[in-house]
Amino acid sequence: MRVCAIAGGVGSARLCAGLARVMDRRDLTMIVNTGDDERIRGLHVSPDIDTVLYHLADLTDWQRGWGLAEESFVAHERYQSLVEKLPGGKDDLQDWFALGDRDLATHLLRGRLLDLGRPLGEVTQALAEAFGIESTVLPMSDDPVRTVLTTTEGERLDFQTYFVRRHHTDDLSNIEYTGAEQSTPAHGVIEAIQGAEVVIIPPSNPVLSVAPILAVPGVEKAITRSAAIRAAVSPIVGGRALKGPADRVLSALGHDVSPVGVARIYKGLIDVLVLDAVDEQHAPDIEALEMRPVVLDTIMTGPEEAARLAKDILDAVA
Amino acid sequence: MRVCAIAGGVGSARLCAGLARVMDRRDLTMIVNTGDDERIRGLHVSPDIDTVLYHLADLTDWQRGWGLAEESFVAHERYQSLVEKLPGGKDDLQDWFALGDRDLATHLLRGRLLDLGRPLGEVTQALAEAFGIESTVLPMSDDPVRTVLTTTEGERLDFQTYFVRRHHTDDLSNIEYTGAEQSTPAHGVIEAIQGAEVVIIPPSNPVLSVAPILAVPGVEKAITRSAAIRAAVSPIVGGRALKGPADRVLSALGHDVSPVGVARIYKGLIDVLVLDAVDEQHAPDIEALEMRPVVLDTIMTGPEEAARLAKDILDAVA
Repeated sequence: MRVCAIAGGVGSARLCAGLARVMDRRDLTMIVNTGDDERIRGLHVSPDIDTVLYHLADLTDWQRGWGLAEESFVAHERYQSLVEKLPGGKDDLQDWFALGDRDLATHLLRGRLLDLGRPLGEVTQALAEAFGIESTVLPMSDDPVRTVLTTTEGERLDFQTYFVRRHHTDDLSNIEYTGAEQSTPAHGVIEAIQGAEVVIIPPSNPVLSVAPILAVPGVEKAITRSAAIRAAVSPIVGGRALKGPADRVLSALGHDVSPVGVARIYKGLIDVLVLDAVDEQHAPDIEALEMRPVVLDTIMTGPEEAARLAKDILDAVA
Repeated sequence: MRVCAIAGGVGSARLCAGLARVMDRRDLTMIVNTGDDERIRGLHVSPDIDTVLYHLADLTDWQRGWGLAEESFVAHERYQSLVEKLPGGKDDLQDWFALGDRDLATHLLRGRLLDLGRPLGEVTQALAEAFGIESTVLPMSDDPVRTVLTTTEGERLDFQTYFVRRHHTDDLSNIEYTGAEQSTPAHGVIEAIQGAEVVIIPPSNPVLSVAPILAVPGVEKAITRSAAIRAAVSPIVGGRALKGPADRVLSALGHDVSPVGVARIYKGLIDVLVLDAVDEQHAPDIEALEMRPVVLDTIMTGPEEAARLAKDILDAVA
C-alpha cells in the first residue's frame, strides 16, 4: 500500500516511524513542513525534516522529541561561552537554540550540499539515504516558505523565536506563511500525493505544522482531488494538545479545541478523522461533517505504540 | 611602541603570540591574510585569522599549528560517517577538512555575525574580544580575495584543496589573488600601518601568505610610504622552509631558496631582514640589497622562544 504522510513536527515523526514499522517502508513518502526552517549560525536548519530523519533512522530520543539520542554539546557550550564574552548585546546570537555535536553533522552536510547548488529536495533525499532510510522524505518545497507569527502585542516572530526561544508562551493573533504564494512544490511532492492509496495527516498542529504544507500552491488541490483514502489524526485529545501549543493556538484563532474543531479545519480535504478513545463522544459531530470517525488509542509513548497506531489506522482505512 | 604585523599562517601566529608577550599588547595590530578563507560545509572558515586568534588566546596546540589544543571531533566523525553512506561521489564533500567541535563554535559565531550583515573586519574584532585578546586583529579586507593556484599540470586549485587536501605536493606554475583588484582594505588596515612605529612581516610564505595581503590595493603603498621601521623575518632557514611548502614554491617561481631570495621579494618594502644564525653567511648579500641584515635565532619551538625572538627583533629595530 502506497502511503503519503503530510508531516509536521514530533507527532508526525512518531506516526511516520510507526508506519515504517508496519508497512513496506519503500512505499512510504513523507512531505515535510519547512516553514520552521531557520538560518542558525550560518547553517540551514530544517527542524521538522531532521525530526523525521532521526525518528525514521531510530536515532532519536523518543521522549525529548528533538535531536539525537546520544548527543554531546561541546560546540554549543563553547558557542555559549564565546557569546557571553562578546562585546555588545547577545540578543540576536541564537544561543537559545542548541545544536548538538552529532546533530551539527547533519546541518553541515546539508550546508555543503546546498553550497554545491543542489535543491533542498535532492539534499533531503541524500540525507535520508545517508541515514539508511528507505522511505522517501521530501520537503514541501525547495523554495523558502516561512511561518511568521503575529502576537496579540503586535510583534512578528519567526517560528523558532516563538517556539524555542519563547517556549510558545505568546498569544497569537495571526499566522502567515511568507513566500508560500511564490513557491512551488518540491520535485516528487505532487506525484507522491497522486500516487498514494492512503494520504495521512498525522497528529500535528493543523495551523503551525500542516497548514504551511497546504499553503504551497498545488498541494491542497492534489489532496482534494486524490483518489486515495485521506485520513487525519486529531492532535487534540481530551481537550488538550498532546504536545506543544496546538490547544492555545487553535483557541486563539477561534477554533474548537476538540477533534471536531480539527475536523472542521480539514473539511473537504479528508475522508476519515481518527480521534482518541477519550473523545469518543465527538464521533457523531464528526459524522455530521461528512467524515468517517475512527476511534483509536492515539497516544504514542514509544515506537511500539506508534507502530500499533499506524497499523490500526491502515487497517481502519483499508 | 606601536607594532603592526602583516600576518600569514602559523609562523606569523607564533611570532605575533611572542610579540603579545613582550610589548603592550594593546599596541599590537595584526593584518591577517584571508586569501585562504574557504566556505566549508556552508560556513565561512578563516584559517589564518583563527590561527592568530588561537595563538593569541593561548589556546592552540603549539606543535600541530592549527586548531585548538584540547579538541574533540564528534561532529567531524559523524560527518565523515554520513558522507561514507551518501549515494554518489564524496569527491566534493570536503571531508578531508577537519573541523573540531570547539573550533566549530568559532565558525558558527562568525557565521551568525556575518548573517547579521556585519563586515568581516567587525566580526573578526568581535571574535578577538570574545577570546579575550586585547590586541587588534584585522582581516586584510572585508571583500572576498582568494588565492588560486595553478599546477604545472594546468589544474586550478583553491588554497585549501592544495594545502590540506593534497598536502601541498603539487608543483605550482602560477599563483593568483582573485578579487584582489576589486577589494579594499578592511576598516583600520591602512590606519594601523600608518600609525605603526614598527611594521613586521613574520616568517610566513612570501607568495602564499604575505603576497595576498600586499595585493589588496593600498596596503603595499602604505607600507612603502610608512615612516615606521619595517622588518621581515625570513621563513627560509638553512635552505629550507621552517614549515609548509615555501621552499618548493619559491623555487618553482624562480626565487632563490634563501634569505637573499626572500629579501629580493621584499625589496623596496622593508628596511631590515631578520635571518637565522645558520644563514649568517648571507648577511653581505642582504646588505647589498640596501637592507640591514639582523642575525638572530629565529626558530620558535614554543611560546617562550617566540617571545624571545619577538623581543630580539624589537630590540634590534628600536
